[in-house]
Amino acid sequence: MEGLRTDLEPFFRPKSISIMGVSTGSYRFGGMSFLHKLQECGYTGRLYPINPKATEIRGVRAYPTLSSLPELPDLVMVCVPAPAVLDALRECSRVGARYIHVLTSGFKELGTEEGRRLEEEIASFCRETGLLVIGPNCMGPYCPDARLTPWGAIPGLAGPVGVISQSGTITQRITEYLCSLGMGISKAVSFGNGTVLDALDYLEFMATDDTIRVIAMYLESVTDPRRFLRLALRINPKKPIVLWRGGESDAGARAAVSHTGSLSGSRHLWEAFFRQTGVTRVESMDELVDAVLGFALLPPFLGKGVFLVGGGGGNSVVNGDVCTREGLQVPPLSSATLKKLREIVPAVGSIAGNPLDHWRAYEDPGHLTRVLDLGYEDPAISVIVVDRVIRRSSFHMPDEPDSTPVVIELMERIGQRKPTVFTVDFSGGDPDLTLQGCSLMVRLCRARFPTFPTLQRASRTLTSLQRYHEAARRQDSGAG
Amino acid sequence: MEGLRTDLEPFFRPKSISIMGVSTGSYRFGGMSFLHKLQECGYTGRLYPINPKATEIRGVRAYPTLSSLPELPDLVMVCVPAPAVLDALRECSRVGARYIHVLTSGFKELGTEEGRRLEEEIASFCRETGLLVIGPNCMGPYCPDARLTPWGAIPGLAGPVGVISQSGTITQRITEYLCSLGMGISKAVSFGNGTVLDALDYLEFMATDDTIRVIAMYLESVTDPRRFLRLALRINPKKPIVLWRGGESDAGARAAVSHTGSLSGSRHLWEAFFRQTGVTRVESMDELVDAVLGFALLPPFLGKGVFLVGGGGGNSVVNGDVCTREGLQVPPLSSATLKKLREIVPAVGSIAGNPLDHWRAYEDPGHLTRVLDLGYEDPAISVIVVDRVIRRSSFHMPDEPDSTPVVIELMERIGQRKPTVFTVDFSGGDPDLTLQGCSLMVRLCRARFPTFPTLQRASRTLTSLQRYHEAARRQDSGAG
Repeated sequence: MEGLRTDLEPFFRPKSISIMGVSTGSYRFGGMSFLHKLQECGYTGRLYPINPKATEIRGVRAYPTLSSLPELPDLVMVCVPAPAVLDALRECSRVGARYIHVLTSGFKELGTEEGRRLEEEIASFCRETGLLVIGPNCMGPYCPDARLTPWGAIPGLAGPVGVISQSGTITQRITEYLCSLGMGISKAVSFGNGTVLDALDYLEFMATDDTIRVIAMYLESVTDPRRFLRLALRINPKKPIVLWRGGESDAGARAAVSHTGSLSGSRHLWEAFFRQTGVTRVESMDELVDAVLGFALLPPFLGKGVFLVGGGGGNSVVNGDVCTREGLQVPPLSSATLKKLREIVPAVGSIAGNPLDHWRAYEDPGHLTRVLDLGYEDPAISVIVVDRVIRRSSFHMPDEPDSTPVVIELMERIGQRKPTVFTVDFSGGDPDLTLQGCSLMVRLCRARFPTFPTLQRASRTLTSLQRYHEAARRQDSGAG
Repeated sequence: MEGLRTDLEPFFRPKSISIMGVSTGSYRFGGMSFLHKLQECGYTGRLYPINPKATEIRGVRAYPTLSSLPELPDLVMVCVPAPAVLDALRECSRVGARYIHVLTSGFKELGTEEGRRLEEEIASFCRETGLLVIGPNCMGPYCPDARLTPWGAIPGLAGPVGVISQSGTITQRITEYLCSLGMGISKAVSFGNGTVLDALDYLEFMATDDTIRVIAMYLESVTDPRRFLRLALRINPKKPIVLWRGGESDAGARAAVSHTGSLSGSRHLWEAFFRQTGVTRVESMDELVDAVLGFALLPPFLGKGVFLVGGGGGNSVVNGDVCTREGLQVPPLSSATLKKLREIVPAVGSIAGNPLDHWRAYEDPGHLTRVLDLGYEDPAISVIVVDRVIRRSSFHMPDEPDSTPVVIELMERIGQRKPTVFTVDFSGGDPDLTLQGCSLMVRLCRARFPTFPTLQRASRTLTSLQRYHEAARRQDSGAG
């Protein structure tokens, strides 16, 4: 089917949506919830709830069947119970609807004969009729730019990220998390059991979508590993793929069978896949979001040398350790850089070097830019990590002005001369610190500087990016 | 000197403090800052600032010299410039002061001949006179119960933790971080260059202090590795030692030389130390705090079997992966447990198993306790991790009541029948989510259930604890 199914755009920009199975009794995760959320998020297309017993639901006219609608809906969301799904698909086919999302669960993931049978019936019916189905057992399509945000009152920011995920909860969390940092989503799809369209169909589609610059995937299984290899080899060098694979442990694999009926495949095969394709492997939600931020915001770079700008002698020591452990290098600065650095860093209470222990760089934006300039000019340095400390009464004079706005303004003016990221530590349970740290992180991310709550996360992200660009360079020179 | 210096209590509970070098001109990190913070934190003893030119500083009478004071101060804080420190110590010795903290930096950590010479002079003077000195180049002692919190307006919660650290910034952060989670400190010491008293002197002292149940250390070097080995072998089985070692990388070691003049020793030696002693090794601030919380709040346990209680199929899959990766086991439940579980967990939309995917356990406290009971009774389960989700409009009915207070009340009643911890995910930049998550984490920690922002952190902590208790059991049976 490769190449035939790439036109999935209508899933994400429907002008009309019919929701089959809007029960007025129950609420959560059902058709009623989709209707409610689409209204709440300002979906501007036409909505057609289907319910044989109601004439109006939430102020919208309800219809008994698809064939009684005044038009052919661009998208049908099927939310009826599992045994009724096949009939719903038959109805879709009869009226000529082609783009269908099936929310309903209760298929092969149950591990029962009945579940498997129902799912096979769906699969074979769609093969015969050419229906394009997302699901079953999933949250379906999401496209903030089209106000298609059926999962709820997420800010719904449009941006350069594509998300393909086998889990509804994880897709929701990825989109929510990225948006909260000012990183928008072009399109996301939670595709569940992947009975008709599968992960690779969405991947192939997103590869051709120019609004998408980074693709994040959460997968529990791949039905056609060779096709995945082929696609990843082609797509990843142009559009980074960040892949989180669920079910690599016995316990995870056991849960995957019950979750999406997936057999997650051998660790061995996956290792080979990552090695061959250079796809960026992540192992948690945080890592996935971090890598996406990095790919979306940072220019390419090849070296591993990082310049660590911060304050506190102990911090310098452990920061050097963390970066090294995560695969970066913290090289000594060139003698020319050191000479200039010593002119602006006092000998007592600071350490002029790499890591740089220099409190003043926290507070004095002019000073920070002079320090950054030295890093940008030093040939041993490929990336810069700046630690920003949240102001505490124990570190600062009470009446000292907060330099953050000036720093952000300066950084925006400088731009990413060399890839530059920030860390802001606000771990713990202090509400003031937490809120300040969170807000500072968001402001820096919005100013297009990836910002991380720990240096460990910053370093791991930079290492992943460096590996990606290094592999891309090798490929280029191999081809040339 | 072993055993002779264990009476360090007066450092932490002085009835009077003299601060030498309270400049009225400069503020930060100097004597003026200590005076200010001690007043602010409600220190109830007598304060004697020394300044030859002032008669009163911040409403407190100032004196020109130590000998002009109306009494012999229990503690002297020396904040004069480095070249004047030896004279200050001579004055201390003359008046009979024995407990001295030297804040001043500018010694061997400079890497200069002059710095080394000044430090050696201090060392030899103190050997001759028996002065007990914390420092130089450090923030000194901290004891919230005695309102000795010279580092600033930290909540100053008293509790079961002892902290020994070579870095001032890191000591401040450890105490601040733990306090914010409701975990109090008995005594902390930032000891810098450790010229006179060193890490092992504080360790030996804290071993005998009954108010301390867990000892957290940050070290860049140890002057007498054999003594450390001997002490750790003796102390750790009774009082867990959590050790973060700075300077293990080349970059970190380079910074350590400039920070505290330390040579951090070979990785090889340290590996052997951890293996032989069973001391808990951590590699970041978060890990250190997590391990301290775990040791302070959880009863001992031997097995690795964890019961994962949460919601979301994808979460179940990746949670199984994370726990396994971090060294725990997620065993299938016994058939008796599974039978009972299936009676209360629906087949569609949930997964009765381990991991347990069961949304209702998030919301219905009665339901959660029934689920926990099953875990407590299953012999394959040693620990339980409960995921708590922050309420979002996309997951919940808007008018659904928040069950958190009931859950906390229930948990407090149940207690730690088997070690039980929580995870609360609030990563990202959404201020509401962050604030709610942070507050929920604190409430659960205060209810004596260790709570972590990621399952990775929870699992790593439980693995460390399990290793510790396993080693202790082996030692016990070896001895018996």
